[in-house]
Amino acid sequence: MKALDEVVDLLTRLPGIGRKSALRVAWHLLKADPSYSEALAARIVNLRAAVHFCSICGSYTEEEPCPVCSSPSRDHSLICVVEQPQDVVTIEASREYRGLYHVLGGLISPLDGVGPEELRLAELEARLADGEVREVVVATNPTVEGDTTALYLKRALEATGVSVTRLATGIPVGGDLEYADRLTLARSFRGRVRL
Amino acid sequence: MKALDEVVDLLTRLPGIGRKSALRVAWHLLKADPSYSEALAARIVNLRAAVHFCSICGSYTEEEPCPVCSSPSRDHSLICVVEQPQDVVTIEASREYRGLYHVLGGLISPLDGVGPEELRLAELEARLADGEVREVVVATNPTVEGDTTALYLKRALEATGVSVTRLATGIPVGGDLEYADRLTLARSFRGRVRL
Repeated sequence: MKALDEVVDLLTRLPGIGRKSALRVAWHLLKADPSYSEALAARIVNLRAAVHFCSICGSYTEEEPCPVCSSPSRDHSLICVVEQPQDVVTIEASREYRGLYHVLGGLISPLDGVGPEELRLAELEARLADGEVREVVVATNPTVEGDTTALYLKRALEATGVSVTRLATGIPVGGDLEYADRLTLARSFRGRVRL
Repeated sequence: MKALDEVVDLLTRLPGIGRKSALRVAWHLLKADPSYSEALAARIVNLRAAVHFCSICGSYTEEEPCPVCSSPSRDHSLICVVEQPQDVVTIEASREYRGLYHVLGGLISPLDGVGPEELRLAELEARLADGEVREVVVATNPTVEGDTTALYLKRALEATGVSVTRLATGIPVGGDLEYADRLTLARSFRGRVRL
């Protein structure tokens, strides 16, 4: 069936959806109310139309600037630097952070040919120019690229006098020492805190 | 973000897609070419519009009757009885079967209040009336409902003189005796074949 193959082919291009999952989705679409298919299709097109990048922090937003950048109740002296726009949504969901954000749009990766000039670093330095920001929290992933980018940021921002911090690395809450890898364990020893 | 929440809410109604998977799909949609979102939306709506049930066998089709029912190269003396329209697609993908199909549209399940009169049984009996069909292969799942329905079919079709068979149950190819459950093992003993 052409209509089925077409939708399955497009669905398998989505992350985490293989051929079997795509077929299950297609069966569901065929069984569900037609209004569901129409609503889903409309929302998929609308997502691209409604969401764009905030001109200040670079995160996904429907308003300009984004609600975080324009909020007077957020701490404008604190900027959390993340790799991708979706990281902002992840951190916001934890309701743990009340400062601003800055999306780099990638990480320094010499192997992939991504240097500092590919990232939104000039925009970050411009935001630090007026002296309101006191601290930059680097929230890149604890990977080789994330570590490299964090170190680069620390050096690049040294002249501005802004304090540069990094999210703690260690054993996740509810995790088990037995299953922690050697590097995580080593880092959690180095980062140990006084009780 | 309203546009994001709306698409995530609808995506989580799909089978096998939780909130995290729906978010990953949404990020992909935001990053991919807008033409992808448009194509996906168009194909989702088209699926419902293009695909309907074959008036003879009850499987999903874009033509009427379906290509299997109308094919002169299929064995019209053999009908494979399945629970749902998607079972036809699964069996066709195996390229193992060359007869016709009949979709019951469910299984007998007293607990769920589904009796034989809810299934497409009268349509099956009508197809057997002209005497062309010699064998009915029951391909319902080897579950309580599938077994009940198979037994019911065997008795209901006894008067027609058509031979009623059932797909073999046993240890799957590449499976391991150690991991076979007791019932599967018992059935594979009962259904043992001479080498």
